Amino acid sequence: MHKYTIKVPSSTSNIGPGFDVLGLGLKLFLTIHVTVHDDERPTTIDYTDKTPKGSVSLDLEENLITKTALYLARSYGTTLPNGLEIMVDNDIPLGRGLGSSGTAIVGGVMLANVACGLNLPKERLLDYCIMVEGHPDNVAASLLGGFVGSYLNEKASSLPPMKWGAENTIKQEDIPYKTSACIKMKWSKAIKVVVVIPKYELATSLARSVLPQQYDRKDIVFNLQRVTVLTHVLGDDVPNPEVIYEAMQDRIHQHYRQKLIPGLPEILALKPGFMKGFIGACMSGAGPTVLILATENFEAIGKKIQEIFMNYKDESGKPIDSYVKVLEVFNDGAVVINEDEN
Amino acid sequence: MHKYTIKVPSSTSNIGPGFDVLGLGLKLFLTIHVTVHDDERPTTIDYTDKTPKGSVSLDLEENLITKTALYLARSYGTTLPNGLEIMVDNDIPLGRGLGSSGTAIVGGVMLANVACGLNLPKERLLDYCIMVEGHPDNVAASLLGGFVGSYLNEKASSLPPMKWGAENTIKQEDIPYKTSACIKMKWSKAIKVVVVIPKYELATSLARSVLPQQYDRKDIVFNLQRVTVLTHVLGDDVPNPEVIYEAMQDRIHQHYRQKLIPGLPEILALKPGFMKGFIGACMSGAGPTVLILATENFEAIGKKIQEIFMNYKDESGKPIDSYVKVLEVFNDGAVVINEDEN
Repeated sequence: MHKYTIKVPSSTSNIGPGFDVLGLGLKLFLTIHVTVHDDERPTTIDYTDKTPKGSVSLDLEENLITKTALYLARSYGTTLPNGLEIMVDNDIPLGRGLGSSGTAIVGGVMLANVACGLNLPKERLLDYCIMVEGHPDNVAASLLGGFVGSYLNEKASSLPPMKWGAENTIKQEDIPYKTSACIKMKWSKAIKVVVVIPKYELATSLARSVLPQQYDRKDIVFNLQRVTVLTHVLGDDVPNPEVIYEAMQDRIHQHYRQKLIPGLPEILALKPGFMKGFIGACMSGAGPTVLILATENFEAIGKKIQEIFMNYKDESGKPIDSYVKVLEVFNDGAVVINEDEN
Repeated sequence: MHKYTIKVPSSTSNIGPGFDVLGLGLKLFLTIHVTVHDDERPTTIDYTDKTPKGSVSLDLEENLITKTALYLARSYGTTLPNGLEIMVDNDIPLGRGLGSSGTAIVGGVMLANVACGLNLPKERLLDYCIMVEGHPDNVAASLLGGFVGSYLNEKASSLPPMKWGAENTIKQEDIPYKTSACIKMKWSKAIKVVVVIPKYELATSLARSVLPQQYDRKDIVFNLQRVTVLTHVLGDDVPNPEVIYEAMQDRIHQHYRQKLIPGLPEILALKPGFMKGFIGACMSGAGPTVLILATENFEAIGKKIQEIFMNYKDESGKPIDSYVKVLEVFNDGAVVINEDEN
């Protein structure tokens, strides 16, 4: 019997103008504890109490972690071995815009890589993560850590359609190499992230459904200008709040999605100087979590945003409850830790 | 009597995906020689033989350099003094996508700043340049030098309409401060620029007229991803040609404009490895100049691109003639040089 642990950081994405481009790995983790038994008992997956019973499937063909692991393993002509007891300890809330599905996918490819002895480099694992997730921002940040910008290669547009379970007849040769380029960018040590997480889920599919299919050129230029400036000034040792605030503005997604989240328009309008240390707010991923960039006064800023949410009502007419986390950027990406006692 | 010279670098813009965002100052100059006579003779502007007679107005209210200078001067309640003999020596071809109008505008604000003793900082001059040009990319690169990314502030959308000559009643208070943020980004010392300049003009207005008003979201994401990666990898000490090539791809402007320039689609499809040192090609600004990024073998690459152009015919049925310049990035921006003999 031996043991190992896979740790995958959560991620925020978009950061205003960087729709489907930017990801940032955060110190809030999906942790997968694997016990490898020396017998042939069927492999199982279960969750600690942090994850409510019934909220995640425990069927290996359905659970996103094991389903992804099986997908990768099968494409290499193998499968997950018997004898694995997988216990997932997940601190990342589901469906809130903190990349929970991306971490599950990254956890899945890391699991197959170790459990099946595939020994693939992260670059190759990323091809699989993108295959499953469809866009690189969250999975790249969770797999590689830090502040990541990425493009999907034109090759990726001709990827074979995803199939799961027994229908999956994709071979590893079918998955092109280097479907993306992901670069790590500098993130200022002075800037921390405060997330304010409303206590309800927002489906990414709903958040996508409110986006227009067509955009005016002036809105495109607006975002192109801001994503360029933003990704550079966020690396400044001494951040300039006014420039970062304006560079965080968006007209491609947040602009449309904010109406799905009561209170968000008021929060997004908060400017530097609203509270000491406050730089600006944006949606985390597709929401409903609000991401705040700040240089100090983190807890107080989070509390104030919580109060703003409480002035608004959810669908059932109750004030919107939320909780706050102050998070640092996690630069290391997903790791496997050997837990065997020597 | 005394003398000074204003030197303004040319600029390329866009560099593929960075439409209305990216500018790069180049070592090819608009040089304005100013002789200040001690009498009240009328101020005049003229051009050296490099500029064909009649191609540029010599009327102070029409010429873009003096018109811009007058615009700035009048907004400060003054005007250009008498006694100036202005001789322009312009190495930048007009209407080819090397920022010639941007350099004239920058030259104009620099001229007024010195001639009227306004002593404004470049940051304030930039507000005026943007007022005249409408977008910051070329003027920012010519004024500040180097590799510049910029956004137009939301304030800039409420700018008062431009008026010239006697109709100009705009006061300096009417021009908001900091209408843009311009940041200088790292440009790899290993990368030089080869420009291949076809011997015909392409009006920016025509180049703009072929652009659609509306774009699909997937094309926007395509460009957002690439401009982010591109502006970072172009600063790498050891450039990665494959990543830069893919990051130079565009679906917002070049994609539509390339059909205006016979031969360009063939040139844009050239990949790293096509010739030693070649990284990738794009339109310079709105064209028709082709900008090539390369790390060595500059002259030979330029010659090869020239040959490709020669395989295509212009409107009159003649092979497209062009000339080549190998240019370095100019990091210093527009300068005033005192030419008085001590």
